[in-house]
Amino acid sequence: MARIKATVAYDGTHFSGWQVQPLEKAPTGRTIQQVVEEALTRFHKGREVKVSAAGRTDAGVHAYGQVIHFDTDISMPAEKWPEALLGHLPPDVQFVQAEYAADDFNAREQATGKEYRYRVLRRRQRDVFRRNYTYHLYGPLDIVAMREAAATLTGTHDYTSFCGTNTAIINKVRTIQEIELAESEDELEFIYRGTGFLYHMVRIMTGTILDIGSGKIQAGTAGDILAAKDRRRAGKTVPGHGLYLHRVDY
Amino acid sequence: MARIKATVAYDGTHFSGWQVQPLEKAPTGRTIQQVVEEALTRFHKGREVKVSAAGRTDAGVHAYGQVIHFDTDISMPAEKWPEALLGHLPPDVQFVQAEYAADDFNAREQATGKEYRYRVLRRRQRDVFRRNYTYHLYGPLDIVAMREAAATLTGTHDYTSFCGTNTAIINKVRTIQEIELAESEDELEFIYRGTGFLYHMVRIMTGTILDIGSGKIQAGTAGDILAAKDRRRAGKTVPGHGLYLHRVDY
Repeated sequence: MARIKATVAYDGTHFSGWQVQPLEKAPTGRTIQQVVEEALTRFHKGREVKVSAAGRTDAGVHAYGQVIHFDTDISMPAEKWPEALLGHLPPDVQFVQAEYAADDFNAREQATGKEYRYRVLRRRQRDVFRRNYTYHLYGPLDIVAMREAAATLTGTHDYTSFCGTNTAIINKVRTIQEIELAESEDELEFIYRGTGFLYHMVRIMTGTILDIGSGKIQAGTAGDILAAKDRRRAGKTVPGHGLYLHRVDY
Repeated sequence: MARIKATVAYDGTHFSGWQVQPLEKAPTGRTIQQVVEEALTRFHKGREVKVSAAGRTDAGVHAYGQVIHFDTDISMPAEKWPEALLGHLPPDVQFVQAEYAADDFNAREQATGKEYRYRVLRRRQRDVFRRNYTYHLYGPLDIVAMREAAATLTGTHDYTSFCGTNTAIINKVRTIQEIELAESEDELEFIYRGTGFLYHMVRIMTGTILDIGSGKIQAGTAGDILAAKDRRRAGKTVPGHGLYLHRVDY
């Protein structure tokens, strides 16, 4: 048996997420974990293969660089995995890269950092081609106030105010090294780099910074919201379809 | 009654085309014409509204700038139409622009030119995010030979060799003013500007130029293929999902 570390990309549009969240009530459609395990199991001639991922993504959330691990008794050059699975995976999931890893490699536990990105479409009209890939928001935004809030929210903090209440996690201290706001033509992209993220954290932080940008939340209060350790003080949870798990570091 | 000229964009992925082609046998899923007419009819409180489009697009083909016309007895500033229909159209179809037109304006008959674009994804791996929006083709291409072929295929010619056989059209003389090959990061975009296009013409021309680029068809033979007036001499019909009706001129 050998352990494989693989990078997986997926278009989350038609998925209920990486897996059905343990605390979610109604299990709905297909999950990415399910189709990946099915593909691997088929490729292993029916021997069940289980995978473990660096981060669970919610319904509609996309990934360029999800990282998983699994064990295999098929011996082939690791870089062949993406092509080998092509015919077994649905068109919205793909293995981007694969390599052999130590037998005790764990995609979730050994991740040292993650990068998430959140895309906002800033124009009056929606765009049929980006409807599942960006969050559409029109109106003036105070980018200076938003960058100030982003700077305030970086560092090592108890992020209780930015954690979805539907979670069993107790220690909510995390380190966010950077929150970058990148403006391009008609989009605003939030780039988050951190050591770990709580449930819905990127979506609540993005919603809060956007609310500060639009004036719904007063500029300069990001520090107060953080200190309050109260989810109700932060802004809205923006939709999953603007979010991307961009990269996982080890 | 007033006539409205409107520009419509759509993601063709989940459509059988603008309308079911008259010569097609099995009518399949939803069509863009159908959902636009349903939206307009609902907006007119059930009075049936019919629309007419500049160009019929096939299954999977997209549009940034399809142009349609229809008659209405609702009096409102023309520029209000896109917003007014928002709640009546599905998320993959949108009215981009609208204006009043002459009572005898005809979107199809009065079009003086059209621009189609065809996107080719040139990289080894497919891309989950562009699977429905580009044609994935990997391998070396002789761009110089392709540009030469593109130049040969412009002008006013009988394009029988580049017309799908499933058509009732007799006169196959058309004028293509320009075929531009635009290279970017990992894509190659074909831009066609012409006065009129035959059934499958852009897809057959693109397939032929690509076949010349890959060496499947000998470089320098585009003129012979054109002169043969024989569909069997040209290259493959590339898939619909790389094609965009970009603009219609009047």
